[in-house]
Amino acid sequence: MRVLGVDPGLTRCGVGVVEGVAGRPLTMLGVGVVRTPADADIGHRLVAIERGIEEWLDAHRPELVAVERVFSQHNVRTVMGTAQASAVAMLCASRRGIPVALHTPSEVKAAVTGSGRADKAQVGAMVTRLLRLAAPPKPADAADALALAICHIWRAPAQNRLQQAVAAQLASKGRTA
Amino acid sequence: MRVLGVDPGLTRCGVGVVEGVAGRPLTMLGVGVVRTPADADIGHRLVAIERGIEEWLDAHRPELVAVERVFSQHNVRTVMGTAQASAVAMLCASRRGIPVALHTPSEVKAAVTGSGRADKAQVGAMVTRLLRLAAPPKPADAADALALAICHIWRAPAQNRLQQAVAAQLASKGRTA
Repeated sequence: MRVLGVDPGLTRCGVGVVEGVAGRPLTMLGVGVVRTPADADIGHRLVAIERGIEEWLDAHRPELVAVERVFSQHNVRTVMGTAQASAVAMLCASRRGIPVALHTPSEVKAAVTGSGRADKAQVGAMVTRLLRLAAPPKPADAADALALAICHIWRAPAQNRLQQAVAAQLASKGRTA
Repeated sequence: MRVLGVDPGLTRCGVGVVEGVAGRPLTMLGVGVVRTPADADIGHRLVAIERGIEEWLDAHRPELVAVERVFSQHNVRTVMGTAQASAVAMLCASRRGIPVALHTPSEVKAAVTGSGRADKAQVGAMVTRLLRLAAPPKPADAADALALAICHIWRAPAQNRLQQAVAAQLASKGRTA
């Protein structure tokens, strides 16, 4: 499974592509940051993010795009920009028929470090180890994008099993009703 | 001046086109709502909004798109969807090189009713009167989109004069420094 992780932001939008399946070593196919100038107007910044995401989709043809789920209660100052950048990433993926999955920051931290409250350094260290990199990806947004992709690959089988179990239970209830 | 007003929302995105200049009677060229199903996933909803906005831009070729400025402190439950829908509207405009202007809800209410705290009914009534319509546009999101366009047409000359005054003052300071 090939996943593009996107850590959305207007100034720095982290992007990282990871390939693999749960239980096997993972491979990093690319990592980077789509940047837009803080002094540009919002419309042009969104156009630049769209262009950047499109290039990553063209270059890596991911099967799924994993985007950080934005919460309105955190970082009120920057949350609007984050929501807007995430909208562009989801739009680009859905327009191509690529499924989008959302994961919360604590789900991502818990997936790669074992703790939902791990700090940036810990996430960076685990991403480096799990992908067998020479050094932690910089900036942190790039490492977070890889962590999102890893989180999705590892959580997907559990989510699928859960969905199958729920579906089976509903079907069995339907038979006994 | 022809302005497309957009009252952003995931479930109902109000759109309205107004033509005119400040100090002259205004003309409504179109009004409507782009709707997306609440049970669709977020990526597909954003694609549907993009398609809807594109159709309005194609049909009316506005010179400017006026979008409601979203604040994170209001309506925390729905603010993320509003921010994401507004991102799509701004992206569609900027991609075509159409300038985007943002106005706050209270600027819009003050422009059309004289009070920044006017209610929906008052805004609807004034939009109906100012555009000489037979009845208030329904739903409220459609009326709000028209109010945004009117607000922009009326505020633009003042904003231009202000910018010119600031520029003149800076230039004069530059000469005396």
